[in-house]
Amino acid sequence: MLRNIDPLLTPDLLHALCAMGHGDEIAVVDAHYPADAAGRASSVGKALRIDGADSARAIKAILSVLPLDSFVESPAQRMMVDGQPDEWPHVQREAQHEVDRGNGKPTPMTAVPRKTYYERARQAYAVVITGETRGWGCFIFKKGLDVTPDVPSSEGRAHISSYLARGDLP
Amino acid sequence: MLRNIDPLLTPDLLHALCAMGHGDEIAVVDAHYPADAAGRASSVGKALRIDGADSARAIKAILSVLPLDSFVESPAQRMMVDGQPDEWPHVQREAQHEVDRGNGKPTPMTAVPRKTYYERARQAYAVVITGETRGWGCFIFKKGLDVTPDVPSSEGRAHISSYLARGDLP
Repeated sequence: MLRNIDPLLTPDLLHALCAMGHGDEIAVVDAHYPADAAGRASSVGKALRIDGADSARAIKAILSVLPLDSFVESPAQRMMVDGQPDEWPHVQREAQHEVDRGNGKPTPMTAVPRKTYYERARQAYAVVITGETRGWGCFIFKKGLDVTPDVPSSEGRAHISSYLARGDLP
Repeated sequence: MLRNIDPLLTPDLLHALCAMGHGDEIAVVDAHYPADAAGRASSVGKALRIDGADSARAIKAILSVLPLDSFVESPAQRMMVDGQPDEWPHVQREAQHEVDRGNGKPTPMTAVPRKTYYERARQAYAVVITGETRGWGCFIFKKGLDVTPDVPSSEGRAHISSYLARGDLP
């Protein structure tokens, strides 16, 4: 438990989200998904867990700290219902609400066929299994960046330490 | 790098701060301290690093997420200058400013004799070495808790998942 950080974000999950860089992907899957195997194949090397929450609540926690990639058209994706690309199960509609809210603007999720999703999850940086018991609660998010404006460092914000503010180091 | 989290907090440091529980201690030491040895003896088992910042900046980052313990009289402590318990080096005055600000109220650091500090650091949950090059930049913080009010769960805030809000589980 930390101040100002969603309590669903465990030490291992926080570590992974922070270690991810621009373009790395995280798969958020429902409780039925073969997440342990996918997690072992992922960069992290093990599945991460948010057992006590459904898809929307887990996504809310993750997007409270993870910026989505603005360099691509679809930084958020959902698993397509087999043969029904336009079908939106309730679990995905609830997730879409949290994606829009977390990203601060409408960010429609595109659909990924199930077989393709399986491959993508294994290639992800991390795989997070949730407590979601409904089907089709599977999503992929691509990490973006909140970049510091390119202003002179003397105007602040460009450096994270206070060395330069002290003026005693180059 | 994460949204809404100080960029000085690395994946390993975030992991440690989040994994700490009520009463666990973290030692924040200057660049001269035998931190590697102390870190190996700590619960984490290795020293954590905030190389690019001085003491005050590092403390600001840590206290942006770490609550201080309200159960004890001195949740924040500083290394005492040998034989001069009332001496406050600049590095410690700057740190005191960040402690007060981070904890939201005046929280005077008490002084720990140097030899005692060495023992305390080795028994800490974590040891963080900073880029502080001045001497006496050594501190100990005891983790507290922002506890959820004891209200009926139906009024919210007492549970972190949305299972109960859905009403379909006990």
